[in-house]
Amino acid sequence: MNKYLQYDPWSIIEEGFQENKQLASESIFSIGNGQIGQRANFEEFYSGETQLGSYIGGIYFPENIANLNKKIGYSSNSEKIINAPNWSVINVRLNDEKLDLATWDVKNFRRVLNMREGILERTFEATSFKGHRIQVNVKRFLSMAETEVGAISFTIKSLNFEGRISFQPLIDGEIINQNTIYNETFWNILQTKTEQDVSFLWAQTRKKDFHFCAALSYVLYKNNELLNINPTKIEKEKVAGFSVGTDVKIGETVCLNKYIAITSSLKHSREELTEYACNLSLASQKKGWNQLFGEHTAVWHKIWSEMDIMIDSDLAAQQAIRYNIFQLIQTYNGNDEKQNINPGVFSGEKLNGLTRWDTEAVCIPFYLGNLNQNTARNLLTFRFKHLSKAIQNAAILGFENGAALFPAATFNGKESINEWEKSFGEIHRNGLIAYSIFDYIRYTGDENYLVECGLQELIAIARFWKQRVNFSEEKNQFVICGVAGPNNYECNVNNNWFTNHIAVWTLKFTIECIEKVKKLDNEKFEALMHEINFSDDETFAWKNIAENMYFPVNNNNGTILQQDGFLDKFKIKASEIPESQLPVSMHWTRDRILRSSLIKQPDVLLGMFLFEDNFDKETISRNYDYYEPFTVHESAISYGIHSLIASRIGKEQNAMELFLKSCRYDLDDLSCDVAEGLHVTGMAASWMAVVHGFGGMQIKNDQLYFTPRIPVEWNAFSFTIHFRLNVLNFHFEKEKAIVQNVKGSDIFVNINNKPFNILSGNLLEIKL
Amino acid sequence: MNKYLQYDPWSIIEEGFQENKQLASESIFSIGNGQIGQRANFEEFYSGETQLGSYIGGIYFPENIANLNKKIGYSSNSEKIINAPNWSVINVRLNDEKLDLATWDVKNFRRVLNMREGILERTFEATSFKGHRIQVNVKRFLSMAETEVGAISFTIKSLNFEGRISFQPLIDGEIINQNTIYNETFWNILQTKTEQDVSFLWAQTRKKDFHFCAALSYVLYKNNELLNINPTKIEKEKVAGFSVGTDVKIGETVCLNKYIAITSSLKHSREELTEYACNLSLASQKKGWNQLFGEHTAVWHKIWSEMDIMIDSDLAAQQAIRYNIFQLIQTYNGNDEKQNINPGVFSGEKLNGLTRWDTEAVCIPFYLGNLNQNTARNLLTFRFKHLSKAIQNAAILGFENGAALFPAATFNGKESINEWEKSFGEIHRNGLIAYSIFDYIRYTGDENYLVECGLQELIAIARFWKQRVNFSEEKNQFVICGVAGPNNYECNVNNNWFTNHIAVWTLKFTIECIEKVKKLDNEKFEALMHEINFSDDETFAWKNIAENMYFPVNNNNGTILQQDGFLDKFKIKASEIPESQLPVSMHWTRDRILRSSLIKQPDVLLGMFLFEDNFDKETISRNYDYYEPFTVHESAISYGIHSLIASRIGKEQNAMELFLKSCRYDLDDLSCDVAEGLHVTGMAASWMAVVHGFGGMQIKNDQLYFTPRIPVEWNAFSFTIHFRLNVLNFHFEKEKAIVQNVKGSDIFVNINNKPFNILSGNLLEIKL
Repeated sequence: MNKYLQYDPWSIIEEGFQENKQLASESIFSIGNGQIGQRANFEEFYSGETQLGSYIGGIYFPENIANLNKKIGYSSNSEKIINAPNWSVINVRLNDEKLDLATWDVKNFRRVLNMREGILERTFEATSFKGHRIQVNVKRFLSMAETEVGAISFTIKSLNFEGRISFQPLIDGEIINQNTIYNETFWNILQTKTEQDVSFLWAQTRKKDFHFCAALSYVLYKNNELLNINPTKIEKEKVAGFSVGTDVKIGETVCLNKYIAITSSLKHSREELTEYACNLSLASQKKGWNQLFGEHTAVWHKIWSEMDIMIDSDLAAQQAIRYNIFQLIQTYNGNDEKQNINPGVFSGEKLNGLTRWDTEAVCIPFYLGNLNQNTARNLLTFRFKHLSKAIQNAAILGFENGAALFPAATFNGKESINEWEKSFGEIHRNGLIAYSIFDYIRYTGDENYLVECGLQELIAIARFWKQRVNFSEEKNQFVICGVAGPNNYECNVNNNWFTNHIAVWTLKFTIECIEKVKKLDNEKFEALMHEINFSDDETFAWKNIAENMYFPVNNNNGTILQQDGFLDKFKIKASEIPESQLPVSMHWTRDRILRSSLIKQPDVLLGMFLFEDNFDKETISRNYDYYEPFTVHESAISYGIHSLIASRIGKEQNAMELFLKSCRYDLDDLSCDVAEGLHVTGMAASWMAVVHGFGGMQIKNDQLYFTPRIPVEWNAFSFTIHFRLNVLNFHFEKEKAIVQNVKGSDIFVNINNKPFNILSGNLLEIKL
Repeated sequence: MNKYLQYDPWSIIEEGFQENKQLASESIFSIGNGQIGQRANFEEFYSGETQLGSYIGGIYFPENIANLNKKIGYSSNSEKIINAPNWSVINVRLNDEKLDLATWDVKNFRRVLNMREGILERTFEATSFKGHRIQVNVKRFLSMAETEVGAISFTIKSLNFEGRISFQPLIDGEIINQNTIYNETFWNILQTKTEQDVSFLWAQTRKKDFHFCAALSYVLYKNNELLNINPTKIEKEKVAGFSVGTDVKIGETVCLNKYIAITSSLKHSREELTEYACNLSLASQKKGWNQLFGEHTAVWHKIWSEMDIMIDSDLAAQQAIRYNIFQLIQTYNGNDEKQNINPGVFSGEKLNGLTRWDTEAVCIPFYLGNLNQNTARNLLTFRFKHLSKAIQNAAILGFENGAALFPAATFNGKESINEWEKSFGEIHRNGLIAYSIFDYIRYTGDENYLVECGLQELIAIARFWKQRVNFSEEKNQFVICGVAGPNNYECNVNNNWFTNHIAVWTLKFTIECIEKVKKLDNEKFEALMHEINFSDDETFAWKNIAENMYFPVNNNNGTILQQDGFLDKFKIKASEIPESQLPVSMHWTRDRILRSSLIKQPDVLLGMFLFEDNFDKETISRNYDYYEPFTVHESAISYGIHSLIASRIGKEQNAMELFLKSCRYDLDDLSCDVAEGLHVTGMAASWMAVVHGFGGMQIKNDQLYFTPRIPVEWNAFSFTIHFRLNVLNFHFEKEKAIVQNVKGSDIFVNINNKPFNILSGNLLEIKL
C-alpha cells in the first residue's frame, strides 16, 4: 500500500512533488471524456521516469502473435489499445534553460484533480540551474461537451527572472508503446504541417488503417493581454507545432492556452480529417478557454447532480467513491455501442483496453443505475453485434449448430486473448452475458430487447452449454470439465460450481424467454426460429441438463464446493501470508497459487450475489465465512462484491473495511501496479457496494427494494438511481430514510420490505 | 500417413524425386555423428521448398522472451538449438545455367541413406532449359572417426553437354532460423577468408559467445585425373569458398571432393579456431576421400557388429529398427557428458534440441544396453551437474531446504520451457531422474555412482516431493495437486497416479540408498550429510508420506485411475475419431483435448512398465485394456512402450502392430510433422519394444532375464546386449534361442525363468 494523496471530498491532491510516485500519479490523475483520454504526463519536458499515454477509444492494434501460438484455436493476433501521438506537449524555456521538474528545484508543488469540474491542475515554483525562479500553474481538461477537444492553459509568473520565456506547444508522434511484444511500431506518421495559426499531425495505424489527426492552435497572453507574435513553425518528420515566446520582467506573467482537436477516422472520413481537425482547433481557440470550460463543467455538474454519492463523515470513502464514479464516466458515457468498458480507463496499456466479463458482472449494473437505459442497452448491443463472431469462435473449438462462445477479451468480437486458460477455460463469461440480458430487462422492463436481440443471443449461448456439458456415468449427472471459474487462480478444473450454476440458469432462463417472446411477438419469433434453424425440441435436452446437473458440495460443513478437488488443496488463508509475499501474483509462481486454496476474487460468492434469491441468508453467511478468509482480493472487483455480500448478511464491520479497500484500490495502490493503469471495473463494484450493499438495493417484480445498513462510521449516505422513467434520490441516516422522487411519475419503493408510494416530485421521509 | 520410401534391410531409399516430400526427406535422410549434423539439403542451389539445417551439438541460443512471460518463475529465455552456417553448399553451373532440381527436368532420381556405412548418396539425370543433360552422383558423410570432419563428393558426367562445368564449394553464413520467435538474427559473421587452398567462415552467436568456424578445401578431378586449376576466390560478407570449373565433352566426368572442417569454441580456444579449422580441412583433403571414408565406415561397422538388431522376414521392421538405431547413434554417442539427447536429432529445430524426461524414460535403457556404462553414466552425470541449478529452480518456486526440481527441458540445467503447464506441472520428471539412477545401478552394478553423485541427487529430489505433497484432511491421506502426468493431454490435475506413485517410490528408494551408502562408504556419507545439512530425521516424514499416499482408483472396474476426475471426462476412443481429425493435436483445440478421455502417451501404463514387479499380469492387462483404446499415441515414445507392455501380457498381435508404428513413426510420417524433424526418443522406445518387449528382457538380482515372445510374422530376431563386462548376442526363433557370450567372463542368463550358465566365448542353444 502506498498512500501519499490528501483526503478531500471533491479532489485528488498530491502535496509536494512525489517524484518516485510519478508513474502512479500519471495513472491516478489521468483524464478522459469517454472518447479520448490521457495519463497525467507533464506538458513540459520531463527527464524523470514517465510513461506517456494518449488514447483514443476504439483505436487498437492487432499485433501478430502467430509465432507464439501454433496450437489450434489460438488467436494469431493480440489486439491492444495503443498509445497515440501525444497532444499535450508544451515545452518551456527560460532563455536557454529547458523547464524540467526532474532536474530543477521544485517547491510548493501541488497537483489537483478537481472531480467536480473535471479539470487537472498543477502549481509549483521551480528554480533553474542558473537560479531563475518561476511560479507555474497548468490546467487541462478534455471536453465532455465537445469530445474531440482538449485545452491546456500554461501560466508562468517570473519570480526573479528577466529574459525570454518561450513555449513550444506540439503534437508529438514519437510514440513508445509499452504493450508491444515485438517492439513493433504501430503508427505511420503521414503528415506534419504547420500553418500560420494551426498545426497538425496526421497518423495512421500500421494495421487496421485507423487514421488520427490532432491539430493545435494557441493564444499567448502577457500580464493577461493578448500577444500577437509571429511564432516559429515546427514541422519535423514526427512533430508539429510552434515555438513562441516573449521577454518578461520580474513579476510578470505569461500564459499560453493550447486548443487541441483530437480526431480520428472512427468519426470522420479520412479525406476530411486534417481539415476537420484544423477547423475544430481554430473554432475552439476562437471560443476561448472560458466558454469551452463552461460547456465542459456544465456536463460535469449535470452528471454530479444525477450520480453523486454523498457520504457524511468519512472523507476517505467520500473522496474515493466520487473518484470511482468520476473515472467510470471518464471511460464510458454510453454514447457509442461500438465501444465498451476499457478496464484500464485511459490510464495505461496494462490490460490492453480489452473488454472482459467484468462489463457484465459489475459495469452494467452501474450504468443501469446511473444513466438512461440506452447506455446499458448499448453495452448489451455491443455483444449482440458480435454474436456471429462468437458463433465462429465456438465453431473453431468444435461446437456446432450455431452455438456461441463470446471472447474472453475483445475489441471487436474476436478473441484477443492468447492464453488458453482464459480463452478456452473461462467460459462462465457466456453465462454472464446471458445474465446481463436478464439484469437489463429486470431493471428496465425493456422486453423488446429480448425480441430484437436477446433471445437470439440466449439460444446461441444455450446451445453452447448443451454441447459443453458432459454426462458422467460415474456421477450419473451432467458435469462440466476443464474450466476456470471467476476465480482464475484456478485452471482446468472440473465442475466449478459457479460455471455449472450459471449454465443451468442460462438454460432455464432461455426456455422462459422463448415462451415470453412467443407471447410478445409470435411472428418475429417464428422468423427468428427459421433464421437460426431452431425447433422447440432442442429445449428437451436443455431441461434434462438443467434438472440433472451435478453441483459439488463440501460434505464437511455443508458449504458449496468451489470445484471438484478443492478440498485437496493446500489450505492457507490470506491472513497467513506474510506482507512481503503480497500480492501473491507478484511473488508466487503460478503452480503454487494454483494448488493453494487462495482465491483471487469471488467465485462461489459471486454466484451467491447474482442468484441471491436462491439462497437463504444463513447459507450465504456460511459460504462467506468459508471462502472470505481464502480470498486475497487480487482483482479490483473482488473487494466490492465481498463488501456487498458482507452488508447483506449483516457483517457491517467487514463490509466497511472491504468497501474502503474497493473504492481506494487505486488511490492507495493496493494492487501495487497502479503505475501501469487504473482498474475501472473495480470502481463499478465499489458503487455496487454502496447502492446494492449498504443501500441493499434489489429489483424484484418491477419494483425497487432497499434494505439500508449504514456503517457505524457514517452519519449518512445518499445516492441517486435512475429506474425506468424515474430519477430517485435516496438519503439514508442511522434512523431515517429520505427518498425523493426527483423525476418521473408516482412510484412504489420498498424499504425494509414495506412498500411506499412516492408521488411524482414528492419526498418521503421515514424512520428506520 | 505418407509412405513413399522403399523397403530395404540396410538403406532408406527414395526412388524418383518426390518434390512434395522434400522437407520430409530432408529430415529423414539427415546425417550426423553425435557432434554435428545436417538435414539432407541438396548441396547445389534448390529453388523449391527447403529448410536448411546445419547443427552443432551444444551450440544453442537463449532467445529473450521476457516480454511474454511476466509471471513469477517463468523463464525469461527460450534456449534453442540453432541453425549454423551451411557447410554443405556446392553450387553447379553448366556454362551460364545453374543446376536446380526444382526447375530442371529430373530423371532416375534415387536418394539412398546407407545406414551400414553412414553415407548419403544421391544420383539423378538432369536436363537444363537449354537441353543440356548430365548424370550426377553426390555422396556425403560426417565422419564418425573424426567428428569435426565432413566430406562431399560431387560427380557429374556430361550426357550431351559440351562446355564448362563449374562448381562453387562454399560455406554460407546467410542463415535462416525456423525457431525464432522474434525473427532474431542469432549469428554474427566475424570473418570470411579465402586463401589459395583453403577458405573459412568464422561466426559467433550473438549471445553466449559460441564461436564457430567451418573451413573447406577441395580437389577437382576430370575423368578421374586430378586437375590443378586456379579457382576464383569467393570472400563475401557472409559467404566464403571457391569457384572452379573445367570444360567437358560428352561422356566426360568431373568430380569435386569437398573437405570440410566444422569446429567450435566448445572444443577449441577462440584464438586458434580458424587456424585449427583450416589445418584440419587441409589435412582431410590430404588424407583423401578413401581414407577418410574408410575410417568412418570402420566405426559404423564396429557399431553394427555390436548393436544391430536382425529381424528375419519382416523387411519393413528390419529397415526401420536399423534406422532407429542409426539415428540414435547419430544423435548421441555417449562421449560428452555436457551433451544429452537432442530429441530432434540433427534434423530440425522443432523441439529446440532440448533434453526432456524422455532421456530417462527411454533413452538411458537404450544406451545402457548398447554401449559401455560410461555412456549412460554420462547421461546421468549431465543431470547431476545441474543439481545446483535444479535447487535454484525449486527455490524460485518456493521450495526450501535444498529441494531440487530439474527442468522440463534444458540445454544447461536452466529451465528452457516457458509453458507453466510443463515447467511447473510435469514434475514426474523429477521421479524419472531418480528412477534412472536406480535403473543405471541395477543394470551396471556401479554402486559407486550412488556414493559419488546419486545419493545427493536423490535426497534433493526426496526433499522436493516431501514439500510438494499436501495432506488432504478430506481424504486423510497425502495428495499431489496441480500436475500433468506423462500424458500431457492433461493439465493441472490432482493426484495423477503416476506422479503420486513415482513420488512414493523415490522416497522409499532414497531411504534405501541412504542405508546402502552408509555401508558402502560411511565417511563420504557423513561428509555429504554435513555438506547438504541432512539428518536422518528427515526420513520420518518421507516414510509417513510413502505409507499414506492416496492413489486414485476406478471403482467401476478396479483399474488404476489416471487422476482424480478422469471418469467425468468426455469418453471417446481413439478409434472413434475420424481420420480427418488426426492427429488431434493438429485439429482439436486444447480445451477439447483436455476434457476428453484421449491420452497422448502412456501414463498409468508407463508406471506399470517401470514398476512392473509391483503388478501381476492380470492387473497390467486390465489397465492396458482400459487405457489403450483412449490412447492416440501422439508422441513418439508412445507406440514403443505400449508395444512392450502388449508383448509382456501376451497380446502379440497388438504388440506387433504397435511396434511397427513405433519404429516406422518417422519413415511413414505418422505424426505428419517429420518435415520439421525426426523424433529420436521414440526410436529408443522401438529398441525397448524389441529387447524388453519381444525379448522380454528384465534385470533382476544382478542377472539378465528373458522371456521371448516372437511375433508370428517373424522367423527370428536377434540383438546384442552389453551387460556389465559382458557382450551377449541373443537370437530367438519360434522354437529355439541361441545366446552367445561374445565377450566377458562366464555369465548366468535366465530364459523363461530358467538360469543358464554360459561360459566365456560359448554359445547356448535351447529349445523354447
